[in-house]
Amino acid sequence: MEKEKLEMCRHSLSHVLAKAVKKLYPEAKLAIGPAIDDGFYYDFDNVVFSEDDKARIEKEMSAILNKNQPFERKEFSRKEALEVFKDEPYKLELIEELPEGEIISAYTLGDDFIDLCRGPHVENTSKLQNFGYKISRISGAYWKGSEKNKMLQRIYVYAFADKKALSEHIQKMEEAKKRDHNKLGRELELFTTVDYIGQGLPILLPKGARIIQLLQRFVEDEEQRRGWLLTKTPFMAKSDLYKISGHWDHYKDGMFVLGDEKKDKEVFALRPMTCPFQYQAYLNKARSYKDLPLRYNETSTLFRNESSGEMHGLIRVRQFTISEGHLICRPDQLEEEFKKCLELAIFMLKTVGLYEDASYRFSQWDPNDREKYIGTPEQWAEAQESMRKILEDLNVPYVVGIGEAAFYGPKLDIQIKNVWGKEDTLITIQIDQMLAEKFGMEYTDSDGSKKTPCIIHRTSIGCYERTLAYLIEKYAGAFPTWLAPVQVKVLSLTERNADYASEIYEKLNALGIRAELDNRNEKIGYKIREALSMKIPYEIIVGDEEERAKTISLRGRKNENVSGLKLEEFIERIEKEVREKTLNV
Amino acid sequence: MEKEKLEMCRHSLSHVLAKAVKKLYPEAKLAIGPAIDDGFYYDFDNVVFSEDDKARIEKEMSAILNKNQPFERKEFSRKEALEVFKDEPYKLELIEELPEGEIISAYTLGDDFIDLCRGPHVENTSKLQNFGYKISRISGAYWKGSEKNKMLQRIYVYAFADKKALSEHIQKMEEAKKRDHNKLGRELELFTTVDYIGQGLPILLPKGARIIQLLQRFVEDEEQRRGWLLTKTPFMAKSDLYKISGHWDHYKDGMFVLGDEKKDKEVFALRPMTCPFQYQAYLNKARSYKDLPLRYNETSTLFRNESSGEMHGLIRVRQFTISEGHLICRPDQLEEEFKKCLELAIFMLKTVGLYEDASYRFSQWDPNDREKYIGTPEQWAEAQESMRKILEDLNVPYVVGIGEAAFYGPKLDIQIKNVWGKEDTLITIQIDQMLAEKFGMEYTDSDGSKKTPCIIHRTSIGCYERTLAYLIEKYAGAFPTWLAPVQVKVLSLTERNADYASEIYEKLNALGIRAELDNRNEKIGYKIREALSMKIPYEIIVGDEEERAKTISLRGRKNENVSGLKLEEFIERIEKEVREKTLNV
Repeated sequence: MEKEKLEMCRHSLSHVLAKAVKKLYPEAKLAIGPAIDDGFYYDFDNVVFSEDDKARIEKEMSAILNKNQPFERKEFSRKEALEVFKDEPYKLELIEELPEGEIISAYTLGDDFIDLCRGPHVENTSKLQNFGYKISRISGAYWKGSEKNKMLQRIYVYAFADKKALSEHIQKMEEAKKRDHNKLGRELELFTTVDYIGQGLPILLPKGARIIQLLQRFVEDEEQRRGWLLTKTPFMAKSDLYKISGHWDHYKDGMFVLGDEKKDKEVFALRPMTCPFQYQAYLNKARSYKDLPLRYNETSTLFRNESSGEMHGLIRVRQFTISEGHLICRPDQLEEEFKKCLELAIFMLKTVGLYEDASYRFSQWDPNDREKYIGTPEQWAEAQESMRKILEDLNVPYVVGIGEAAFYGPKLDIQIKNVWGKEDTLITIQIDQMLAEKFGMEYTDSDGSKKTPCIIHRTSIGCYERTLAYLIEKYAGAFPTWLAPVQVKVLSLTERNADYASEIYEKLNALGIRAELDNRNEKIGYKIREALSMKIPYEIIVGDEEERAKTISLRGRKNENVSGLKLEEFIERIEKEVREKTLNV
Repeated sequence: MEKEKLEMCRHSLSHVLAKAVKKLYPEAKLAIGPAIDDGFYYDFDNVVFSEDDKARIEKEMSAILNKNQPFERKEFSRKEALEVFKDEPYKLELIEELPEGEIISAYTLGDDFIDLCRGPHVENTSKLQNFGYKISRISGAYWKGSEKNKMLQRIYVYAFADKKALSEHIQKMEEAKKRDHNKLGRELELFTTVDYIGQGLPILLPKGARIIQLLQRFVEDEEQRRGWLLTKTPFMAKSDLYKISGHWDHYKDGMFVLGDEKKDKEVFALRPMTCPFQYQAYLNKARSYKDLPLRYNETSTLFRNESSGEMHGLIRVRQFTISEGHLICRPDQLEEEFKKCLELAIFMLKTVGLYEDASYRFSQWDPNDREKYIGTPEQWAEAQESMRKILEDLNVPYVVGIGEAAFYGPKLDIQIKNVWGKEDTLITIQIDQMLAEKFGMEYTDSDGSKKTPCIIHRTSIGCYERTLAYLIEKYAGAFPTWLAPVQVKVLSLTERNADYASEIYEKLNALGIRAELDNRNEKIGYKIREALSMKIPYEIIVGDEEERAKTISLRGRKNENVSGLKLEEFIERIEKEVREKTLNV
């Protein structure tokens, strides 16, 4: 079914829902009921729904659909409309907001229901009879989305052209729920949040912190191999710095500021980006054209004053740590170095297994919103043309995002969607021909003249918190062995085998294999189920037989079940997996 | 010479200096001239000294000493004193401040000099003739040390009982100057500071950042081996958290606060300590006596709002990163676990080579300053008695510091002095029997009852910035090979040998040995001197002969000079040094 038709059907179904609710709860007041990505919703006031109401409402909807009732358009003057909807305060408010003199339309559904509506609708509910629909959830929602208004009751409904599409969608949502990092990450003891610390400030528990430590070391080492020089620069600076960089004028709302310029001698702000700090490494001494490119990287913590509504698990937070880097080069090196930055990002995505899920946005400035940016139209044209050429040369399949550039230059954004379909930027590579000038960065060219270098701002992997979130969702918590916070759990079959189990556990730990030991006096089935629920890649089980033969039994996450294995064989196997960063186990 | 006598002599010499200055610059006005640790100073107004004046003044001082002039005490009423010093405005101010009716004393030196002074003094300058003295520096200093007052000219003089002690001191100061991390660390490109970023916020350049990366990984790995669980917790929290922990009432002045409680809905503060954040890992689920001890560590960044005057290089800063940990245990485990924390700290100090330089302070509360602390006198008595017993059992040679405890408990502080003799705390291990209760931390004991655990707060190595500072000073920048940011520099003897040099460089880098390459067309002597000035442990030099024989020539920092070495032999040697963390090379 084409998109417009599907939307019309969904919207028509929302009228069916509204009619059903009015029949069951005549006191309910109607607000609005638009189509959305996977169905529609309708907001009501003066009524409180419980979980049990879902089935009643669905049954009533089905009864209406079976009556083959027609949708019919009516047109009114404002005065007539105010009379027709005199008992529906939200409709009255909407009518009042329409421009004077406009014809106002509404749709009837049968003889006993009318709703203010621009349309269009299907002619008759018979057209909706093949539809698959199901009330997905009931939640609160502010009238017109504003906290200042009254909280209404919103009924969300999945709606698809047929039952099969509906059931596929329900299955997909069930799967998403299981993978949702914000739920699963807590169950697996990777992170938590605490009210009195604050929103957007997650606490990484030992298992989550271990994964991030492993990722950070891997990224730092790979970058070092590729010629990047590590810096560690402060997380805050006086406002003076941000005034030079332009953050004070163009980014202050997103920053945490310490102090008050009117009162205090020194005002500090936490950094939202690393750029002006890392430039100080370049500025530390005079540079020649022979020194370039200079590549600086940092495992950098940043702070952004996100508003409460935007925060989400590990994906959108107020403090995050990222492998941020700035590459300072001559103009003739720009294309080659940009390419290497992109190659590095792709290498990282492939290594952690997110490459297939990525899409690319070429984020440009908005020439009609000049005050958001520094620099002249000519500088922007030049920087964007450079990037366009590079992206074409590299065959990057991008879409363009107008008005999404950084305030100092265009970006290539590598995007990932979470389990619920919401897209965010994981990695970004940016061209900047403006900030070097602001900070007086220069180099002596071969002819002895002073030149201003180009800068590439880039991340090589996304911020670690966000990357961890996507990895939890990608693997439903069953991390590749090299990243798994616990790689093996050793289980004793009976109390008699506790010493043998301990011995194996000690051996593994001494080799740096992350092992846990379960010598509790519990049924082995219970112990295995518990280990599986934590998505540990391997369980080693040892009973009398294994102890006698000096072997182990091995369980893998993918229903693997082997007996009589030598411990050394297993060690060789797991070490190979870690070394090669194998993804599918 | 005993201390009191030495001080008297130094103070007498300060009168000699003042007399000399008045002779040479009659317009100079006298302020004050006390003895200090290595001599004395005297402050003057209405005169500006240049470097060249030093010799003139010293000559005049010597002339005065040779005249064998007596110091004689005079006593005056306030009225008389005001008359005697009528041309000395600073003396007049001091006289005015003396209590009404007090006898005012002054000392003459010969017929033509008198100075307001409490005394005592030597009888005659002949007593000072063996003294070794030397003007060390001239600097500005505010009258009475306050920025609000006038800036005076201060002459610092080294003064010792004989010429030998003076020359030893001068040599020591020269050595200190060479080792001073705040100077040497910048010359070696380890760190820098930038005015527009702010004081106490050093920028770690690639070489300094590499050393800290190496230290951090070493510490994290060692702690993991010893059963510590890594966390990564946020760097800020709502004021709510600090109100529970007591920081809001007892530590707020040292914290950076974001926002204003009177205006803002949420007020945040940057964390000055990790404790209340790390406790959240413990609080994440119910704990049993069998789970204890739980050891949490973190490579933790902290922020302290130090005042401008206190900041110094990498030793006293506003943001620093530390291996902070909190060990949560049953009371019966406290002594054993405290011992293990101390063993870990000593292991770290020995590994980096600072163990011999450490001293120990047992920092206790001040019962006369109750409002600085939380808890009851009984709780303090108990915690301090626990710690005293542990320290006695472990034979820790401590001194007691009253009023130096943390607000929540007593501390064992491991102290180090910098090259100038100033002592600071590098490592601290603390016992806390109060905060667990405030956060509702508990465990279920074997009898099913709920108990409150004990907490040990501890660092295992000092904050990384401060540790780096002490290491720079300890090794005068010539770091042990395992920590050296560059371990080997490969130098080509002539342009012909550039390819062979590059080949060696690539081989070393591929093995993770931190190498640099110098293929410039410069004299080899110049290239070697430059490498030595950066205190790189090894230089590999390759010319035609080495290239033919497929060998290398090796220079070490300690005048080592070997030819005809196989590269593999060198690699084996340096890898052993790194593996074993050898200190003396």
